[in-house]
Amino acid sequence: MSEARIGISEEALAAVRFDARGLVPAIAQDAASGEVLMLAWMDRAALLRTLETGRACYYSRSRQSAWMKGERSGHLQIVREMHLDCDGDALLLKVDQLGGIACHTGRRSCFYQRLEGAGWVTRFAPIKSEEEIYRER
Amino acid sequence: MSEARIGISEEALAAVRFDARGLVPAIAQDAASGEVLMLAWMDRAALLRTLETGRACYYSRSRQSAWMKGERSGHLQIVREMHLDCDGDALLLKVDQLGGIACHTGRRSCFYQRLEGAGWVTRFAPIKSEEEIYRER
Repeated sequence: MSEARIGISEEALAAVRFDARGLVPAIAQDAASGEVLMLAWMDRAALLRTLETGRACYYSRSRQSAWMKGERSGHLQIVREMHLDCDGDALLLKVDQLGGIACHTGRRSCFYQRLEGAGWVTRFAPIKSEEEIYRER
Repeated sequence: MSEARIGISEEALAAVRFDARGLVPAIAQDAASGEVLMLAWMDRAALLRTLETGRACYYSRSRQSAWMKGERSGHLQIVREMHLDCDGDALLLKVDQLGGIACHTGRRSCFYQRLEGAGWVTRFAPIKSEEEIYRER
């Protein structure tokens, strides 16, 4: 998938099985390193906006609205590939993560806690602070 | 995380935020190649069984019960690492995929459909047929 605007057929869109809330989970994976960056949700509108813009758009369950990832922080995700699983109920996006920061905490990935022994251990420090990320825009 | 039985503290367990259905999405990623293999769901029991056995266990929403991945096919997932995201509502497992087949269709990953132009294109052929997988056990 190039950066250019693309279309999707009605048939291909129908293959995506949104759940009872109208949502499908979407995994964002760094296209270059293979690191899993985050898991978020898309409704139909967010999926279509993702395809139209080539930038990952998700649905915020807390804010109950679609948003373009990075619209405030600048940490946009350029979508290079989109994959659908065997059941049609999960998406995998291979992305270029602008700024190298996917997480709102300023870390490169949201999955920064690793289970070691009995507890979660934070693996890497923020590249930027939350204040920095949201102040500079 | 080694293959050995491990414990998890109550505090660490409480950091995992199960949804209203008591489920949390879990991404399985090949520990060696970094390929995303599947997305499935865990309830508390499946998570605990995963930690006790070192094998990925999930919750089947269709069958409404926990199952060990590969219990019928032999395609077990040996869990090498477990990660939790910033919101505590998604898990990432790094696994060794026995048989090199994660998908019930016999493919190495469940994400075998890639969007190309307007439609989904199947990327790779099954390593084994479904008949083979489930007959031989």
